[in-house]
Amino acid sequence: MFELLATDTHSKARLGRLTTDHGVIETPVFMPVGTQATVKAVSPHELKELKASVILANTYHLYIRPGMDVINASGGLHKFCGWDGPMLTDSGGFQVFSLAKLRKITETGVHFQSHVDGASLFIGPREAMQIQRALGSDIIMAFDECPPWPAEESAVRGAVERTVLWAHGCKEEHALLPSGPTAQQLLFGIVQGGSYEHLRRECAERLVALDLPGYAIGGVSVGEPEPEMLKAVEATEPYLPTLKPRYAMGLGQPDQLVRMIMRGVDMFDCVLPTRIARNGTAYTRKGTINMKRSDMRLDQGPIESGCQCYACRNFSRAYIRHLLKSDEILGLRLVSLHNLHFYINMMREIREALAQGRFAEWSTAFLNEYKARNESNEESEHE
Amino acid sequence: MFELLATDTHSKARLGRLTTDHGVIETPVFMPVGTQATVKAVSPHELKELKASVILANTYHLYIRPGMDVINASGGLHKFCGWDGPMLTDSGGFQVFSLAKLRKITETGVHFQSHVDGASLFIGPREAMQIQRALGSDIIMAFDECPPWPAEESAVRGAVERTVLWAHGCKEEHALLPSGPTAQQLLFGIVQGGSYEHLRRECAERLVALDLPGYAIGGVSVGEPEPEMLKAVEATEPYLPTLKPRYAMGLGQPDQLVRMIMRGVDMFDCVLPTRIARNGTAYTRKGTINMKRSDMRLDQGPIESGCQCYACRNFSRAYIRHLLKSDEILGLRLVSLHNLHFYINMMREIREALAQGRFAEWSTAFLNEYKARNESNEESEHE
Repeated sequence: MFELLATDTHSKARLGRLTTDHGVIETPVFMPVGTQATVKAVSPHELKELKASVILANTYHLYIRPGMDVINASGGLHKFCGWDGPMLTDSGGFQVFSLAKLRKITETGVHFQSHVDGASLFIGPREAMQIQRALGSDIIMAFDECPPWPAEESAVRGAVERTVLWAHGCKEEHALLPSGPTAQQLLFGIVQGGSYEHLRRECAERLVALDLPGYAIGGVSVGEPEPEMLKAVEATEPYLPTLKPRYAMGLGQPDQLVRMIMRGVDMFDCVLPTRIARNGTAYTRKGTINMKRSDMRLDQGPIESGCQCYACRNFSRAYIRHLLKSDEILGLRLVSLHNLHFYINMMREIREALAQGRFAEWSTAFLNEYKARNESNEESEHE
Repeated sequence: MFELLATDTHSKARLGRLTTDHGVIETPVFMPVGTQATVKAVSPHELKELKASVILANTYHLYIRPGMDVINASGGLHKFCGWDGPMLTDSGGFQVFSLAKLRKITETGVHFQSHVDGASLFIGPREAMQIQRALGSDIIMAFDECPPWPAEESAVRGAVERTVLWAHGCKEEHALLPSGPTAQQLLFGIVQGGSYEHLRRECAERLVALDLPGYAIGGVSVGEPEPEMLKAVEATEPYLPTLKPRYAMGLGQPDQLVRMIMRGVDMFDCVLPTRIARNGTAYTRKGTINMKRSDMRLDQGPIESGCQCYACRNFSRAYIRHLLKSDEILGLRLVSLHNLHFYINMMREIREALAQGRFAEWSTAFLNEYKARNESNEESEHE
């Protein structure tokens, strides 16, 4: 399913290709997040125009609302939301630990109350597989326990034990399930271990023994400082198989993604491009800009000069600022499209640079120009 | 500019064509409302796909925000908002009387405070022409006084006097102004007169003496019962020139539009299709439906069977209901597109029926099937 096409000579960056039932994913790749079966404010046809190759949806959210009977009646998630390309769903683990109330953890999973209506629910590894089989996503994630940051070593140790135990349960259950809307589903394991390097290594090695089709690095972008995030990735990556895709969950800002790619990561998802768009913040090669700024009032230029996105080809900063100041939905639509284009186009440039052996040059130039403003470092970039 | 192509033999319905600098408008026509230089939640390219032939924007709103320096810097309203087809702007009169605070009316216009920031402003007939010349709209409206409903005869009489006086001022001022972004601007007069038939007739006759390129019926859809609305139109229409377009401002529900067309009206604008979409209400041939209804939960059909809009071609009721229940912007986008398609397509069917001499048949069938639910009759349908 995964082909490693090239490896950078100056870093661990990789060029790859992951083949799924719904299409091919060229890596490194950015996956727009469609938490509730819609990338916020964007239509599936706009995602095609943006050349998004894979989108993400959230098991926990969809399980609670609309509920599995609704998805089943549509014949799976692809048909439900009108997206016929590859999809990845998380396992619900992250949200059970971050959103749900009154959690009770057992060996077989987690009892919790829905954050929407307080209903008593249970998800464990077997349920996570049953739900994702019914969703029919192309890439499915193992049910894991994501400890908060910071956390004591004993708590992280417990989370790693359950994560490994549950990954076994996921693999077993998935092999036993009757067929669903998508024939081939790639089950990825999730490496936990917090900031503890030995736990990261141990978790990675025990999951790799399961010979899963791909591996994710979880428990990053949960509020930790960036050096901790990089350390967690560096402590995990060497123990992941070279010939399988690696996915850093919930990351991140553009410069962080470049640094992760240099450390050998292939896949990313993040709510930032659409979330900050709804506040009127746009990405540029030099960093983010606030589109409501008063100096944009008369500005006839596009959000970013040279950008080929729909917003930049058709509308001025002055108009977009007016829309945002007037709380008009078209304003956040345009900035959302621009920001998604920024991430997707950045990945396309990275793949081209890797294919042509000039990624070191590209990444140096990009990181020199991009000034991170850390506008969202304090909070989780997941949903 | 206006050609009368056919007249119905069973009613006063007319088929016409109005030519503007930015394109041809086939009538009867529905004009989507873009109050703040954007039809809410819809892009100009989506409006093209919907085959909207003319859109409306609001002078009062744009004058206050973003302000004329911003529009001027863009070279006019068309370039500012990225719509290259015909545009109509109202004069600001309606909003000065419905939205602004601390109004003081004089012979030369109205002093008022902005409803956004309380700034002291003045608009009269000359200012309304200056602003609309700078906006560069293809159809511009005379500055009028729209009395509330109900109103004493003496108050309506005063409004009619000022409306006629100001129409003279508008015509004079417009002839004197230097050129703007659009060479040919069609100035329409607005007939007031409330529920008083003799005042409607007098106002119409005095405005028709000005030989303006078109005439509007104002002071309708301001909270009055539907019979009053029909009476106001019936009291005005006979005194309007046959060979000029007639525009009923701020109307209305689909069946009301059909009844107005039968009474000789050619042009309509209304916020209903986009406003009720944002509440999750969709138009169908049988009347409106609430898309959040629980019986749509598993419904795999489109909003309306046979509809060719983007939403109906691509998405199920179950998915749209999920989006609306989850407060996802794509939900109101899809219902907005459907509702605008409903109005625009209805007008296309009416023009075809008129061209083929079967409008009586079409309108009888439509009115028999359509059940008005009067969901918005209590409030103004303007913005």
